[in-house]
Amino acid sequence: MPKTFAQDSVGLVSPQTLHFDQPLELASGRCLDSYDLVIETYGQLNSDASNAVLICHALSGHHHAAGYHSEDDRKPGWWDAYIGPGKPIDTNRFFVVSLNNLGGCHGSTGPVSINPATGKPWGKDFPKLRVRDWVNSQARLADRLGIEQWAAVIGGSLGGMQAMRWALEYPNRLRHCVVIASAMKLTAQNIAFNETARQAICADPDFRDGDYLAAEAYPKDGLSIARMIGHITYLSDDGMGQKFGRDIRSGSFERGTDEPVEFQIESYLRYQGSAFSGSFDANTYILMTKALDYFDLAREYDNDPVKAFSGAQCKFLVVSFTTDWRFAPERSREIVEALIGADKAVSYAEVESEYGHDAFLIPIDRYYQLFTQYMNGVSADL
Amino acid sequence: MPKTFAQDSVGLVSPQTLHFDQPLELASGRCLDSYDLVIETYGQLNSDASNAVLICHALSGHHHAAGYHSEDDRKPGWWDAYIGPGKPIDTNRFFVVSLNNLGGCHGSTGPVSINPATGKPWGKDFPKLRVRDWVNSQARLADRLGIEQWAAVIGGSLGGMQAMRWALEYPNRLRHCVVIASAMKLTAQNIAFNETARQAICADPDFRDGDYLAAEAYPKDGLSIARMIGHITYLSDDGMGQKFGRDIRSGSFERGTDEPVEFQIESYLRYQGSAFSGSFDANTYILMTKALDYFDLAREYDNDPVKAFSGAQCKFLVVSFTTDWRFAPERSREIVEALIGADKAVSYAEVESEYGHDAFLIPIDRYYQLFTQYMNGVSADL
Repeated sequence: MPKTFAQDSVGLVSPQTLHFDQPLELASGRCLDSYDLVIETYGQLNSDASNAVLICHALSGHHHAAGYHSEDDRKPGWWDAYIGPGKPIDTNRFFVVSLNNLGGCHGSTGPVSINPATGKPWGKDFPKLRVRDWVNSQARLADRLGIEQWAAVIGGSLGGMQAMRWALEYPNRLRHCVVIASAMKLTAQNIAFNETARQAICADPDFRDGDYLAAEAYPKDGLSIARMIGHITYLSDDGMGQKFGRDIRSGSFERGTDEPVEFQIESYLRYQGSAFSGSFDANTYILMTKALDYFDLAREYDNDPVKAFSGAQCKFLVVSFTTDWRFAPERSREIVEALIGADKAVSYAEVESEYGHDAFLIPIDRYYQLFTQYMNGVSADL
Repeated sequence: MPKTFAQDSVGLVSPQTLHFDQPLELASGRCLDSYDLVIETYGQLNSDASNAVLICHALSGHHHAAGYHSEDDRKPGWWDAYIGPGKPIDTNRFFVVSLNNLGGCHGSTGPVSINPATGKPWGKDFPKLRVRDWVNSQARLADRLGIEQWAAVIGGSLGGMQAMRWALEYPNRLRHCVVIASAMKLTAQNIAFNETARQAICADPDFRDGDYLAAEAYPKDGLSIARMIGHITYLSDDGMGQKFGRDIRSGSFERGTDEPVEFQIESYLRYQGSAFSGSFDANTYILMTKALDYFDLAREYDNDPVKAFSGAQCKFLVVSFTTDWRFAPERSREIVEALIGADKAVSYAEVESEYGHDAFLIPIDRYYQLFTQYMNGVSADL
C-alpha cells in the first residue's frame, strides 16, 4: 500500500538538473564555462509567471526544501515546516523554486564535480565564490524558467544574504525580499568560528591539502569537528541547557565513566558531527564559509548600508530570533534601520524563541503566523 | 648591567618543588602514592602565619603568577598586573603562594611525569582529577608551609571554583574567598565547547590515543585547534570586533588572497593556537577541561547552593565582567544569591569591560580599585 502524505505536504518530489553553458564570470575574476544547477520546484507557475518564489539555502542546505524523495524517506526537505499547501509559502498559490547553489555538494557543479579541463574532480581548485556569484547564477536560472520577476526571494542565514544581494543587484526582478536570521556582514567572532572550523578540516591528514578525492581519502574527523563547532553556534545556551542539562549518560559523577562520552550534550554533538561529515563535502564547506566571511553588503557602497539599499525596489520582511547569537537580533535591526533610512517598506519581527539560530528552521507559532500573514500580502499582489 | 625591574614588581622569582609522600585519595577512588607540587611565593610570611594568600590558577595557568624568572624574560607571570608591592594583592603585606596544580604540565606531578609503577610517563593513564582533589592537595601544601588559615584564597575562572570549594571543604582554613569570573557549574554550552576542543585533540593522529609521549609524537594541530576554540570563548564579540574588525591582511576583497590566512582575526587565532600547542600538554588539557565539566558546587548538597554555602565561615568577594559570556555575570549573581540566602558576608561587583572572560587577567581601573579596597580590608584583619 503506498504511503499517504499529510494533506499539507507537497508529497513526492523529484530534483531536476539544469545545464548552463553560457560562461559565468565570477567575482574572483575567474570564469565557469558551464555548470549544472540542481533544483526542485513545488506548485504551479501561473500563466503570467508572477507567482514564483525563490528559496535560497544556508551553509549546509540544498535544493531539497520540501516533500519527500521516496515513500521510504524518514525526513522531508529542510524547510518542509514552511513550504506546502496551506503553509506560509503556500504551494497552492506560489510556484516555489529551490536550488542547490553553485559550489554545493548535492548535485550542482562544485568541488566534487569533474573539471572538464582535467577530467578529474575540481576539489580544492574549484573557483572561490561570493554571494553575488550565487545570485547571478540564480538570475540565469530565473531566465531559464521564464521568470522575469520573483514574487519573493526568501532566505534564512546565508540565504538571507542572497535575498538582500538580489534586492541590490536585480532590483526589478523581485517584489518582496524576506531576510530571516541574517546579517549585512559577519562579525570578527563569526569569522573566528568559521576559521577554527576550517582549521579543523585542514588539520585532518586525510584532507591531503584539499586533494582527498584524488587520494580516495576523506577528512571525516575534521569535518565532524567543524560541524560540532558550527552546531554550538546554532543553538542557544539556554536551549542547550533545557534540552541536555548536565545529564550524564552512565557511571558515577565523582568517578566519571570509562566511556569516552560522558555528558548527553557530548553524545549529541558527536552524533551531529558524524552524521554531517558522512554527507557533506569538505571543500564545499570551506568554500561556503569563505563566502559567508566575505559577504559585506555595503562594502562597495562606501560602507553605507542606507546607500546600499537605496536602489532597492522591493518590499522587505526581516525576522530575527531572541536567542540567536550567531546572527543576533541586533544584526537584523541594523538591516531594518538601513532600510528605513533608505525609505523602503520594511516589516520587522523579533520572535521569542529558545532555539538560537536554528529557530528559522523550526515551527514556532508567532513566526509561522507572521510569515503566513506576510506571504498572504505577497500573494495579494499577484 | 643587570636589568632594573619596576618598583611594583616582585622582580626575579624562583619556583620550588615540594615533594609529598603521604598518599592522596582522589575523588575518582584512585590514589596518588606520592607527588610533587611546584610553587612560587612572593612576600614574607609573618610571625603568626596569618598573612598568607593562595592563588588558584585557571585552565591553562601555572605557578608563575608574578615577577620574572630571568632578566631576559619578556613577559612577567600571568597575574603580574595584580600581584606585587602596592598592587591589589600587595606583597608588602601578604605572603602569596601560587602553585601548579596536580595534573598540570609545568612541573607538578601530571601526565608528563614518570609513573613510578611503570617507569614511563603517566600519559593518558594519569588519574582523573576533580576540583576537590586540587583543594585537598593545596591543603597539604598549606600544612607544609605552616599555614593553618589563609587570609584569602583567590581565583579566577576554574581558580574561582577551587576558592569556593575551599570555603566548603575547609571552612576554618580561610578568612576570605575571592571568586572572579567563575560559576557554580558549567552550562551545557560550556561543556559543548570543551568537548569539541577535546575531540580536536583526540582526532589528531599524533595523539595516538593519548600515548603520544611513548610514541615521541605530539598532537600539535589538535591542541592548537582546541586553543582556538577556547580563545574565541575568552574574548567578547564586541572586543574582537574592536580589535580586529573585518580587516584583511592582504589581497583584494573580491578575490580573496591566495594566502591561507585572510582576515586579521584568523592570523591572531592561529598564532594563539600555535603558541599554546608548543607549551602545553594535551593530556593535561583534557584532564583540566574534564575537571571543569564535572565541577558542580552544590551537587552533593541536594543541588541547593544555599545549603552548600551554609557551612562556609569566610567572607566573599565575587566579581564578574559585563562581556564575559563564558561565565556570564548571571553565573556570578547565582553565587551571590546563594551566599545571601546562606546569610554569608558577600561583596559583589559587575565590572564594565570589553575583554570578555579574559578581563580577569587584564588591568581595568574599576576592577583594580575594588580589588585593592577589598584586599585592604583583608589585611586590616591581620
